[in-house]
Amino acid sequence: MEKAFDHLGIAVRNIDETLPFYLHVLGGVLMDRYTAETKGVEVHVAAIRVGDMHVELLEPTNRESPIARFMRQKGQGVHHVAYRVPNLEQAIEEAKREGVRFYEETLRINARGRRLIYMHMASTSGTLIELCEYP
Amino acid sequence: MEKAFDHLGIAVRNIDETLPFYLHVLGGVLMDRYTAETKGVEVHVAAIRVGDMHVELLEPTNRESPIARFMRQKGQGVHHVAYRVPNLEQAIEEAKREGVRFYEETLRINARGRRLIYMHMASTSGTLIELCEYP
Repeated sequence: MEKAFDHLGIAVRNIDETLPFYLHVLGGVLMDRYTAETKGVEVHVAAIRVGDMHVELLEPTNRESPIARFMRQKGQGVHHVAYRVPNLEQAIEEAKREGVRFYEETLRINARGRRLIYMHMASTSGTLIELCEYP
Repeated sequence: MEKAFDHLGIAVRNIDETLPFYLHVLGGVLMDRYTAETKGVEVHVAAIRVGDMHVELLEPTNRESPIARFMRQKGQGVHHVAYRVPNLEQAIEEAKREGVRFYEETLRINARGRRLIYMHMASTSGTLIELCEYP
């Protein structure tokens, strides 16, 4: 199935300290800010449009957030790369037929209604890749 | 200056092992393969178009390649994020006025004629960001 690049998720220690770079140096536009406190997701998000793509800055809300764990291992930087598909269930089935594994059995829905699932990094040569579909 | 997302550089151990994922799962198209052996850059490159963006898979040609050093620290995954500008010298000057530091004093030209420079990660909250201009 056709896939389009959707966004980069970028782990940062502090969104307020990072925002000026994205707004004033890269010339981005802040589109949305919100906090997701679902267990396993605890994160502050700033969605920024840069040119024709978007970046999500991800700041952990606590030390157990997956983003905090990621930064303890790898430091700040790109956490995931997201590709958009028109039909997520079908894209998952197609990927499974190619041997791709996923971290979860079923897709989930984020705080803004985006349906998503993460591919296992063993299937992607080490990049955390999100497949997503917008409502 | 206006910046457009250009590509992701992704460090991988072996391009041939990674290509099937990008071609058959993500539906990408292989556009170019080449090797850059300039000192400090030793890398095999596979440029792949995925949807409306492109990915560069980067495989080190030897253990001293910057990509090999990156993978020893962080493993496989996104190495840099590149943004395209219409005038690289002017973009560098503007970024310097915003306090951004760069790893090099002057831009360089890659094996395919792209003019580029990397921002210092201390200025970008930990993401290696390339600014580039096409001839």
